[in-house]
Amino acid sequence: MKKLKDLQELISQSVDKLTFPLHPAELYEPISYILSIGGKRMRPALLLMACDLFGGNIDDALSPALAIEVFHNFTLMHDDIMDNAPLRRGRATVHEKWNQNVGILSGDVMLIEGYKLMMKVPDHLLRQILDIFNNTAVGVCEGQQIDMDFERRSDVIIKEYIEMIRLKTAVVLGGALKIGALIGGADIKDANLLSNFGEYLGIAFQLQDDILDVYGDPEKFGKQVGGDIISNKKTYLLIKALELAGGETATELQHILANKDFINEDKVQAVTAIYNSLGVKQYADDQMQVYADKAFEALDAINLPEEHKQYLRDFADGLMVREN
Amino acid sequence: MKKLKDLQELISQSVDKLTFPLHPAELYEPISYILSIGGKRMRPALLLMACDLFGGNIDDALSPALAIEVFHNFTLMHDDIMDNAPLRRGRATVHEKWNQNVGILSGDVMLIEGYKLMMKVPDHLLRQILDIFNNTAVGVCEGQQIDMDFERRSDVIIKEYIEMIRLKTAVVLGGALKIGALIGGADIKDANLLSNFGEYLGIAFQLQDDILDVYGDPEKFGKQVGGDIISNKKTYLLIKALELAGGETATELQHILANKDFINEDKVQAVTAIYNSLGVKQYADDQMQVYADKAFEALDAINLPEEHKQYLRDFADGLMVREN
Repeated sequence: MKKLKDLQELISQSVDKLTFPLHPAELYEPISYILSIGGKRMRPALLLMACDLFGGNIDDALSPALAIEVFHNFTLMHDDIMDNAPLRRGRATVHEKWNQNVGILSGDVMLIEGYKLMMKVPDHLLRQILDIFNNTAVGVCEGQQIDMDFERRSDVIIKEYIEMIRLKTAVVLGGALKIGALIGGADIKDANLLSNFGEYLGIAFQLQDDILDVYGDPEKFGKQVGGDIISNKKTYLLIKALELAGGETATELQHILANKDFINEDKVQAVTAIYNSLGVKQYADDQMQVYADKAFEALDAINLPEEHKQYLRDFADGLMVREN
Repeated sequence: MKKLKDLQELISQSVDKLTFPLHPAELYEPISYILSIGGKRMRPALLLMACDLFGGNIDDALSPALAIEVFHNFTLMHDDIMDNAPLRRGRATVHEKWNQNVGILSGDVMLIEGYKLMMKVPDHLLRQILDIFNNTAVGVCEGQQIDMDFERRSDVIIKEYIEMIRLKTAVVLGGALKIGALIGGADIKDANLLSNFGEYLGIAFQLQDDILDVYGDPEKFGKQVGGDIISNKKTYLLIKALELAGGETATELQHILANKDFINEDKVQAVTAIYNSLGVKQYADDQMQVYADKAFEALDAINLPEEHKQYLRDFADGLMVREN
């Protein structure tokens, strides 16, 4: 088994070697720019890992892995425009550094470049892998739209929220693992099980992210604690709190959400106190565990040597231990 | 040979039957909306025509033809945002009717839907056809970027202009014909020749469009005469005039381009007078003829029965007789 860290490093080096035409500069420079901003390269590394797990040669999976990374960065480029975000990982976003039209059109061509890279697979896998890629890509777009819809809605329920994070975050993990598994020689049953493992784990991971935003150790979490609270983001915790709160608590929570004059620290403290009084963290922990269990269940059913499955369990445990 | 008009009608009916998921509504409704605005459906009809010409069954080419139409409308949806256009064919553009984010994300998912439709071809053609589609799609994006670059540039030369219209307008025609030909059973040599025919004809057609903007019969042309002049659009005529003009004429032309207080009619009259004094229409006519000749040359070399080639010649003549 190759180490995940080594696979991430291989992806980073390979991303750096990706070249695009020089002309027209404003179409292609933003692609190299956003790819250079970095990130953990987790999605493409998982694709390589899946190939490796089933005994495939990771060189055969490198282009599809890069396709996933290019696709992911296309979504970031367009999401940053839609979210009006000035910064990504401390660097100017593409529409800030150039302009909005550049961000739209460079993103478009990135999506096409993603397809070009994804097509570098053997003929007998081409249609199957592109079908997965299409479904993944559509899912991410649907997730982003539903997430934007949530901003305007006050009646979001937990079931819808789980479906949103499944589409927006988890299907790419499932898709990457499934493509890697097929390239590695897995049959469709095992590829689907590994895909389920990734999708459930992705949901669990996102729920953990929601919890850590409020209850995480700021030093380990690496983000501002309470950022979701400050921005009124409809996370699992907030949706659950809105569902559970009654009487005075409901009034107070609605008051805090509607009031724009709160000092951030006070707002985080007040909302956290409500979360604590309602016990929403426990609900979130339980929900996270449900999806982690589903992930491990899918994993158990895969036809792979026990040591390979243990490798995946260790990987999943590594993802899920960031708490506290 | 099926009549082009009948093929256009078949496409229109098939576009009307295209269905997309109901949810999320803001992601999919704009797709049906922009497709319902209509248009001549020329690109997909040409794809069917190419299939028919080589003896194929046009039913086999219908999904790829729809893919070309969906792709074309994706480019319109994003171009309308970039051009800040409020109307398309007298109807509100998507970003006007909904909002800009809807236009970006619906466009993204349209591009993916285009790939899904384009994949509905036999396995042995899948890679070849997707390669053509990728190249076509990248070309259109490059053409759009170069066209936007031109707005800020004052040193555009004719060679660059021809390359821009080739990418922005002509490669889709070439690509559609090539894909249709391959589905119809053409060998790669004939498919390439038919593609060249379409690409050259597309360039000639765009040059004719530039000429008609100034010299066309307003009733037959269907657009405001001089629209390109009013918006300072860098057409073949303007670029050639800037190249040819010297001394006082150059000063006058620059003055007109820089002056925003002109009454539209006066501006059209003044610029047309300069075009006439420099004889730019003749240059444009000659250039258009060069590309029409190249198109017919490619056509002559295709291995098809003479009557099929005559059909294509008649089609090309039909496109090119809109003058006066």
